[in-house]
Amino acid sequence: MKNISVLGSTGSIGVNTLNVVRCHPAEFHIRGLSAGKNISLLKSQILEFRPALVSVANEKLARALADSFSDRNDFKILYGIEGCIDVATSADVDLVVSAMVGSKGLLPTLRAIENGKDIALANKETLVMAGELVMKAAKKNKVRIIPVDSEHSAVFQCLKGYRKSAVRRIILTASGGPFRGRSAEDMSQVTLEEALQHPRWKMGKKITIDSATMMNKGLEILEAKWLFDIGFDMIDVCVHPQSIVHSMVEYHDGSVMAQMGIADMKVPIAYALSYPRRMKSPNKEFLNLPDIRTLEFYRADQDQYPAIKLAYRAGREGGTLPAVMNGANERAVYAFLNKQISFQEIVKLTEKVMSVHHVLQKPSIDEIVEADRWAKEQMETLIEERMDHC
Amino acid sequence: MKNISVLGSTGSIGVNTLNVVRCHPAEFHIRGLSAGKNISLLKSQILEFRPALVSVANEKLARALADSFSDRNDFKILYGIEGCIDVATSADVDLVVSAMVGSKGLLPTLRAIENGKDIALANKETLVMAGELVMKAAKKNKVRIIPVDSEHSAVFQCLKGYRKSAVRRIILTASGGPFRGRSAEDMSQVTLEEALQHPRWKMGKKITIDSATMMNKGLEILEAKWLFDIGFDMIDVCVHPQSIVHSMVEYHDGSVMAQMGIADMKVPIAYALSYPRRMKSPNKEFLNLPDIRTLEFYRADQDQYPAIKLAYRAGREGGTLPAVMNGANERAVYAFLNKQISFQEIVKLTEKVMSVHHVLQKPSIDEIVEADRWAKEQMETLIEERMDHC
Repeated sequence: MKNISVLGSTGSIGVNTLNVVRCHPAEFHIRGLSAGKNISLLKSQILEFRPALVSVANEKLARALADSFSDRNDFKILYGIEGCIDVATSADVDLVVSAMVGSKGLLPTLRAIENGKDIALANKETLVMAGELVMKAAKKNKVRIIPVDSEHSAVFQCLKGYRKSAVRRIILTASGGPFRGRSAEDMSQVTLEEALQHPRWKMGKKITIDSATMMNKGLEILEAKWLFDIGFDMIDVCVHPQSIVHSMVEYHDGSVMAQMGIADMKVPIAYALSYPRRMKSPNKEFLNLPDIRTLEFYRADQDQYPAIKLAYRAGREGGTLPAVMNGANERAVYAFLNKQISFQEIVKLTEKVMSVHHVLQKPSIDEIVEADRWAKEQMETLIEERMDHC
Repeated sequence: MKNISVLGSTGSIGVNTLNVVRCHPAEFHIRGLSAGKNISLLKSQILEFRPALVSVANEKLARALADSFSDRNDFKILYGIEGCIDVATSADVDLVVSAMVGSKGLLPTLRAIENGKDIALANKETLVMAGELVMKAAKKNKVRIIPVDSEHSAVFQCLKGYRKSAVRRIILTASGGPFRGRSAEDMSQVTLEEALQHPRWKMGKKITIDSATMMNKGLEILEAKWLFDIGFDMIDVCVHPQSIVHSMVEYHDGSVMAQMGIADMKVPIAYALSYPRRMKSPNKEFLNLPDIRTLEFYRADQDQYPAIKLAYRAGREGGTLPAVMNGANERAVYAFLNKQISFQEIVKLTEKVMSVHHVLQKPSIDEIVEADRWAKEQMETLIEERMDHC
């Protein structure tokens, strides 16, 4: 029996994690849940999974939640980043599913690692912003970081059984998003509704927009660098519209190992929860390649996908720059979701913020958090300036 | 330093094995070579690799070889099946590459196993004919049997790091041969020259014809059954014309692991020689999926490929029937190569021989060898009858 805390329980990964746990009641127990503002979903999760600890975004929501469970005193209600950290570090938790959206996932995840908790990592920002510190902490505390992202889970599975020295290249696949093959001119016309239509995966809004700009792939490159302790020259991206091959590892002997499957986040989540074993899928659906018939692969042209170029640049310069790229992009995506900026401006404005940042090398965690705050503030200013223009 | 004996050193796998060894002189030493009748190639192999033991098909060839090396007394020349067994079982051999063509590979391979030699197995017939006995002997003698066939090497690599209980299905890929999609009527017109044109792999004649009839895939199903200790219901075949995905393993959790690469036998050979490590490829060419662009997958229709149906039947009935299928097919292929029978008759006559065989369950090795002899004799008779007709 593994005791699990889920950070971000009402998001797409959180909900799917609970779907997996529901199918394996003898193997997993939900010890803690942390959510943001979706209190109605959180309530039903509390009723079903009976966690001992729950955390919500703020005090007001915590009080409202307490009121609606006034007849129950078998669980504790916390709030804010501190509440989230308590859920992540509670003494009897074995594994923390880190599935909050955005940079706020970093601190709770890092604290969980420092407290010796194994991590099922869906929050890319943890490694994008503070990969070096996080991996050092994981090593020091003998903590396993098991990726939940379908791409990194694929790479992780393809590496199993082999030495890292045998690896020649990691190849992350990308669906190419809904706008693959569109001209720059076309792209200037992209609407919010179009950008939210991901061709393969049903996901939260932030990651869906990141997939459309390919910034998601950029963040994944940075995540892969730290997770697999590998140079940027050894990380490639390949466009694969069918999203069946979730990613690949090429070895020096000429073998390429690939992990495939239907697009269902429950598969990598289940793998992360049960690692190093594999459980039976909660799914009745299995991949049958003759039904798919054709798998296609295209070069990921960095001129067509400026977000990927930006990510390599941020990664190679290092220091606080990846945190700045991530923070600026995060703020820009919400501005796009609020129809404040255009689709193409997400990456353009992110680049602008990066270009005025003075990179700090070997930053502390506080300096990283500050860089994130700074980047969002800069983006905020750019958005306001732009809106004043209109 | 691994001491290696190569059985079938002048065949396609043998030559490629020596190509791999040539690139890694510090890791491998050729201790013994066994060949058939290609004495001129064998001579140059002796000069280059300086084995201590050499075996050829018969006494006459052995004497001719001795004459041409009359100035050398640093190696022993043997002949026949006994000579081959001596090469396979010599005291200081660590690994035997079993790459003879056809049923004559069985006994030397089995004797090597009984003498505790690890086996790099290219000779399918060893497991097709006597899988149960061979795997028992391997277990008893703590011998590793590492597949060299690209499909089984792929499965072997996809299984690494995971428990067999997690496997749902093994999926062997098949190029579909040069006649994929042709009608039955078209097939009756197939010439020897057409059948020898394999679309993807450059191989020996016997296996090229087996690929065209798909009997090769049938034999691989039987080989996989024993090698991976798995039921026939868990072995599927999928037609994949590009031969990039060499085979796959589907797990119960919904993950499908695949091994890919360019069509080059040196890759699985190198893997078998260096297992459990991976060496640098002697190849400069690596797989780049965007260059290939499209991978296709089709259902392997058993009505279109009667050889596959036959193999499942032979495997499920078991006993001496797989040896009979293999022996009859082997004789039929040589008859086709000699233009004595038509392409379609290879499988038809093989089925005929199988249908008159009284299956012996739990056969001894002698009974298996006898079943092989009987099947070839029966096929011989059928071929003669057919030729009398013409």
